[in-house]
Amino acid sequence: MKLLLLAASLRKDSVNKKLLVLAAQLLKAQGIAIDMADFAEFDVPLYHGDLNAELGLPHGAKQFIARMHAADGLIIASPEYNFSIPGTLKNLIDWVSREQPMPWLKQRVLLMSASPSLVGGNRGLWHTRVPLEACGAIVYSDMFSLASAYTAFAADGQFTDVSLQQRLKDNLTGFIHFVKALKAAGY
Amino acid sequence: MKLLLLAASLRKDSVNKKLLVLAAQLLKAQGIAIDMADFAEFDVPLYHGDLNAELGLPHGAKQFIARMHAADGLIIASPEYNFSIPGTLKNLIDWVSREQPMPWLKQRVLLMSASPSLVGGNRGLWHTRVPLEACGAIVYSDMFSLASAYTAFAADGQFTDVSLQQRLKDNLTGFIHFVKALKAAGY
Amino acid sequence: MKLLLLAASLRKDSVNKKLLVLAAQLLKAQGIAIDMADFAEFDVPLYHGDLNAELGLPHGAKQFIARMHAADGLIIASPEYNFSIPGTLKNLIDWVSREQPMPWLKQRVLLMSASPSLVGGNRGLWHTRVPLEACGAIVYSDMFSLASAYTAFAADGQFTDVSLQQRLKDNLTGFIHFVKALKAAGY
Amino acid sequence: MKLLLLAASLRKDSVNKKLLVLAAQLLKAQGIAIDMADFAEFDVPLYHGDLNAELGLPHGAKQFIARMHAADGLIIASPEYNFSIPGTLKNLIDWVSREQPMPWLKQRVLLMSASPSLVGGNRGLWHTRVPLEACGAIVYSDMFSLASAYTAFAADGQFTDVSLQQRLKDNLTGFIHFVKALKAAGY
Repeated sequence: MKLLLLAASLRKDSVNKKLLVLAAQLLKAQGIAIDMADFAEFDVPLYHGDLNAELGLPHGAKQFIARMHAADGLIIASPEYNFSIPGTLKNLIDWVSREQPMPWLKQRVLLMSASPSLVGGNRGLWHTRVPLEACGAIVYSDMFSLASAYTAFAADGQFTDVSLQQRLKDNLTGFIHFVKALKAAGY
Repeated sequence: MKLLLLAASLRKDSVNKKLLVLAAQLLKAQGIAIDMADFAEFDVPLYHGDLNAELGLPHGAKQFIARMHAADGLIIASPEYNFSIPGTLKNLIDWVSREQPMPWLKQRVLLMSASPSLVGGNRGLWHTRVPLEACGAIVYSDMFSLASAYTAFAADGQFTDVSLQQRLKDNLTGFIHFVKALKAAGY
Repeated sequence: MKLLLLAASLRKDSVNKKLLVLAAQLLKAQGIAIDMADFAEFDVPLYHGDLNAELGLPHGAKQFIARMHAADGLIIASPEYNFSIPGTLKNLIDWVSREQPMPWLKQRVLLMSASPSLVGGNRGLWHTRVPLEACGAIVYSDMFSLASAYTAFAADGQFTDVSLQQRLKDNLTGFIHFVKALKAAGY
Repeated sequence: MKLLLLAASLRKDSVNKKLLVLAAQLLKAQGIAIDMADFAEFDVPLYHGDLNAELGLPHGAKQFIARMHAADGLIIASPEYNFSIPGTLKNLIDWVSREQPMPWLKQRVLLMSASPSLVGGNRGLWHTRVPLEACGAIVYSDMFSLASAYTAFAADGQFTDVSLQQRLKDNLTGFIHFVKALKAAGY
């Protein structure tokens, strides 16, 4: 089983990237193959309907679709901008949604967030569910939000809070179980 | 396979009830057993934390849990009140969420709405997803919203619009397929 | 200037009530008259369309409208249930919205929340804005969410955290200023 | 009194632009000065935290702030992408929100949408309110959503449906009244 991991941030020292590095480590320990993507790999222009009609999807959006479809599931870790989804991530979702047949249909998605605030970016994730579910993706109910993200990681990249690390493990295990069940049933 | 069907309306001539009667007919034709519930059967008081702490769940909430857990999935058809979830439905969700272990966890839910308006109650459904998913329910991505509900039904309870009836069939078939896949995989 | 204050909780030891008691004290110090309401005063049945058509609004809903219209603005402090608006509060909003002309139109509303969690109930407030704004209320942009509410209050009812108390004062002052501006302009 | 009008679409034949052209005409008839902006004028890259930290705001975001602050209010007409806010518009909101002091604070905003669908893009507007209100903007409660937008306009740019045109006029008049009230009170 393979998962595509994507942090929806272009920032070099993104805490969402750090969260996914830890998640990747925990997933590999469970025998999951990881495709760790960089948001910059899926560089796309701001959505433009006329451009879309004339030229179809930009290279970055096609690349994202290919990588997503080569995996059994997708994990997005995203910052929260103004209590909502980053425009950058929404822009990628919008471009991808313009392909036929709908690339998001039946894709299994786990959402995570990391933020220096006490809320941990959770409000943004609820706004991220909507376009994904509107496009037919299956977004896992349980989501992981990391609060106080600047002080959460030890030098070795693990959480200093042991119970939090267990919560992350449980979230990932739950998602793997969900994806495996759907896959086993040929869904 | 058995599904619990619930129209979140106390109104005698509810268009959401009519929608579920049609859905039940289409489901039975596919060999699905139907438990058609009436919202009044799950009568509960307005949520009161002290009452809850002292007396636990009211009878109506316990009944709902029992009926939901006796089925393989749940279909809720709900009106939209003020662009959002009816307080009545939210109140039932709130009561049910106070039981341990969480009764909503892993429950498979399909949401529908019927409304005389042109929007068909769809905005309300997006607000209905949130508490259900927050409680761990698996809410099917595709939702069915019936617009212009006062003129949509023929005398025999079918939709006058053939393509709309096909859309309803497809939605139900998709949900059945999803529930069966999760069930087959022991999820 | 007079404000109606309502904690959307029936619980005797509600932290939302404690929050409003402190808010009332700070408002009185600024010369604002306070009408402190108890949620139980606006007791209404679960919304029922047929009942509404036959009998109009229940006594509790009419009482709420009268109290709201006798004030220059409304402050609601509400718990968050399952990341969303309590069904109880939504049920009152729904009943009130059935009067003609729409009682919520142009009402100035400040939303607050208190919760033992680290998120402070803020997600629920965003779901509370929607039906109010859909009904034409003017909901103040800035909202106050009290996290860790079980440990936030000193014995005298003030916040132990001085900067948090200042933030509450600023929020209230901002709202008063907003209401006064609209009132002065005859809006 | 002057209003900035912005259609959040890069499409040449955007129905949102057509809607704003009609709105501008109705506003001018009421003596309002119009600054009609083109979304391409506020061209900004995808948000990048490191770029922001190093270089501040891009030219397009600064231009938008200057134009918004030179007006008494802002009208945004926006398409709905996947039941939510366009990534492009959210990206501009995100960039603008990174300036100090917060440029959105107390800005008066009216939201509109136009869409070929029967829902008229209204779901997207509710997701557009959130970041704006989170940033302190005052978003007018009443919003205008134009359904069936491809067939709504006559050759002269007016709506063929007279009552719909009246509804648009009323919405604009209501917003003007609101902005004037706040302005008169020095808010």
